[in-house]
Amino acid sequence: MLRYDFALREKGQPLYEFLYECLKEDIQRGRLKAHTKLPSKRELARDNGVSVKTVMNAYDQLLVEGYLVSREKSGYFVAGVEAVPKYHPERAEHPQIYVEDNWFADFTANNAVYEKFPFSMWRKVMRQVLTEYDLELVQRAHFLGVKELREAIADYLYRSRRMIVSPECIVIGASIEYLYGRLIQILPRDAVYGVENPGYKKIPRIYEEYSLNWEYLDMNDQGISIESLTKSQVSVVHVSPEHHYPLGTVMSVARRQELLNWAARETERYIIEDDYDGEFRYYSRPIAPLQVMDRNHRIIYMNTFSKTLAPAIRISYMILPEKLMIRYINRANFYSNTASSCEQYALAKFIREGYFERHLSRMKKYYRIQGERLIRNIKQSVLLPAVKVLGGECGTHLLVKVDTSMTDTEIKWAAKQQNLQISCLSEFCSEVKPDYQHVLVLNYSDLDEAAMKEAIRRLGNIFIDW
Amino acid sequence: MLRYDFALREKGQPLYEFLYECLKEDIQRGRLKAHTKLPSKRELARDNGVSVKTVMNAYDQLLVEGYLVSREKSGYFVAGVEAVPKYHPERAEHPQIYVEDNWFADFTANNAVYEKFPFSMWRKVMRQVLTEYDLELVQRAHFLGVKELREAIADYLYRSRRMIVSPECIVIGASIEYLYGRLIQILPRDAVYGVENPGYKKIPRIYEEYSLNWEYLDMNDQGISIESLTKSQVSVVHVSPEHHYPLGTVMSVARRQELLNWAARETERYIIEDDYDGEFRYYSRPIAPLQVMDRNHRIIYMNTFSKTLAPAIRISYMILPEKLMIRYINRANFYSNTASSCEQYALAKFIREGYFERHLSRMKKYYRIQGERLIRNIKQSVLLPAVKVLGGECGTHLLVKVDTSMTDTEIKWAAKQQNLQISCLSEFCSEVKPDYQHVLVLNYSDLDEAAMKEAIRRLGNIFIDW
Repeated sequence: MLRYDFALREKGQPLYEFLYECLKEDIQRGRLKAHTKLPSKRELARDNGVSVKTVMNAYDQLLVEGYLVSREKSGYFVAGVEAVPKYHPERAEHPQIYVEDNWFADFTANNAVYEKFPFSMWRKVMRQVLTEYDLELVQRAHFLGVKELREAIADYLYRSRRMIVSPECIVIGASIEYLYGRLIQILPRDAVYGVENPGYKKIPRIYEEYSLNWEYLDMNDQGISIESLTKSQVSVVHVSPEHHYPLGTVMSVARRQELLNWAARETERYIIEDDYDGEFRYYSRPIAPLQVMDRNHRIIYMNTFSKTLAPAIRISYMILPEKLMIRYINRANFYSNTASSCEQYALAKFIREGYFERHLSRMKKYYRIQGERLIRNIKQSVLLPAVKVLGGECGTHLLVKVDTSMTDTEIKWAAKQQNLQISCLSEFCSEVKPDYQHVLVLNYSDLDEAAMKEAIRRLGNIFIDW
Repeated sequence: MLRYDFALREKGQPLYEFLYECLKEDIQRGRLKAHTKLPSKRELARDNGVSVKTVMNAYDQLLVEGYLVSREKSGYFVAGVEAVPKYHPERAEHPQIYVEDNWFADFTANNAVYEKFPFSMWRKVMRQVLTEYDLELVQRAHFLGVKELREAIADYLYRSRRMIVSPECIVIGASIEYLYGRLIQILPRDAVYGVENPGYKKIPRIYEEYSLNWEYLDMNDQGISIESLTKSQVSVVHVSPEHHYPLGTVMSVARRQELLNWAARETERYIIEDDYDGEFRYYSRPIAPLQVMDRNHRIIYMNTFSKTLAPAIRISYMILPEKLMIRYINRANFYSNTASSCEQYALAKFIREGYFERHLSRMKKYYRIQGERLIRNIKQSVLLPAVKVLGGECGTHLLVKVDTSMTDTEIKWAAKQQNLQISCLSEFCSEVKPDYQHVLVLNYSDLDEAAMKEAIRRLGNIFIDW
């Protein structure tokens, strides 16, 4: 006879659920062996003082989960289930697998400065979107991204960069890396990717993750080396012509034309134009992107609001030439758009109502002054053996050539002792050339104004303590 | 002498910008030839009645962009730039590349029903987050996702599914597909992926996109066939044990144990548990996920709020065993989290305050009734030759076996004439077995209540018109 003590039942727990748990545990622990016939519903109900309906519900759950099998006209049997060790229902402990660093100053971070974020305006448009929109906030968005936003971006790009872009050729995504992943799917499988050397380290990492073929291409003072490009097998080249990272080079018009001509020579050659901080040019107008000069539909233009607005706003975009757009539509429209609809509508409003460009011009002023202040601090530092400072006219990083007998590894290690994180130019290169040695790359976009003096003092200490 | 008509300047355009545009155009059109020496700043300023500063700004911009080169002590020269055809600054037209379908009823859509979305509660928590949070809304979120949300999910999974999960092992992402892409990077490169056959079509498509090796594995009435699995080369298998799509099978406990045993036999074998609609089980308790039975850390559990809440809320998650979590942290922490921070905080609040589970129980009731209503409509239809209806106890789709001489392709084509989009079970299979023929797969989660009768009438028409 199977009898359970219903007094042990948790407060509020349904009778059938308690019975189900008891039976399941007996089966799991092997107390009810495989192929054992269970009592009939009526019998079990009577023995336990519960209704037949209660037993029926418990048996049904056990049937669905496969603990029981039912054989027509002969009743219920325990299924062939192995006994499992006892289950501990405590909440799992939290292993501290990941420990976040806490630097006094992190010169490798490329974040926007949070304090300057236009909170009141952003909150205002977010609240408006929450009030004014309804189904749009829950329905699956257009797989390319919210139409209003694509239109606002197209208008903005025309106003600010003289780019002529159809909203139908813009793909919105939650990050540049994500869009990169989607882009790779519509480029030829046998494409060989070209990476600027030195260059942004994430790019070859992405190619590695996708098991793609890629090559390093040299840089010279006009931009990517065409000689290096033509000697390579590369068919898709990644460049940052408006402001190279970390060298700061602006690709010359002549080099731009050579690059476009190179692409035009074969049908499946493309140029990925990464305009990651082209908006932040301080002493001259923003430089017209390569995309503007492209007559052969070879430019894939990429940009992100995570840099211009805030890293938490996960909205990036790429602009595809029509040929690739058609491929994208055919292949990728089974993917949902990854960016939040609510934030896409908010951003569209934010751009349309002029807040975005107002924010940009405020940030340009702020970053310019921050850059000037940092350069001043570096030049005034008695400890820092800075022989040359490059940058400050665009973006939010400087290159500082230092005169030292330390290796770059030693510099980084010593910086760590000062609770500073820095990179050296040599880390952005495939092999170390003498010119690229002893050059600090200092990102200052989220460097606290107050902390700057102290950060530079500590930076100086690196060299004095040696 | 170079002289420009400054009266042509656009309203509000700075003088230097106009001058820059004129010079650039002259260089681009070839009116100013390569290597021509330009007038000195003073000269050009005098000839055009502008300040030297204006000319300097224009020259500087042209220098940065590479239209001019400056040679020390000899002045400014036109760079070797090819002439480009005239630039048309009209806004690009919008080619209608992508045309959206407009079905009377789309039985292939797997969207949540929008009208049932708890707007007032969601708006409330979103507004609270906008008011209460500050820097959190702009700072780069933790790369695994917002901590509050990971904690809320861990608690919810324990309450509702008896899963014991550390928030440190949860990875938040903007979509299941995105997380899949990340997951693949931490599984062995030579892994062979197993796909249920029949099964969810997106899965092999994702493997194809990543050029991975994959195999189909047979299904039988207890779940994935272990025989088929052991005969294959598969090392990572994708299953939906709580509710198979589209068959509706619940994997039996015995099969679950066999599957876990299979995984335990080699160190790099894993099971991806896709619990896409396990929350929607109507007549019995939700079935405990495989993850609960896993003693060997082989289960990767995946779920999404895009299905339970709304497709526009781009928050999905995966739970990794510790070994994979460590790999994830080492490889993927250079990726920013893709989900919106604001929505992650809002969702954490939404779960914590009980709105999510309240919404789920309302939806369960609604979907259950919708399913019953659809089954009733199908059974009452005089035209529809339905011989068997499967489903309704879980999820939001039914299988309807029809007795017809039409092929499945003809059924789909005829449905299209009725402005209905449907799938047939045979589309979810690698090869067509007789059992899997003439079975309609009807997703009804976003089927309008009012339209249901008419949709079934039209579905009947398919067979009568033939």
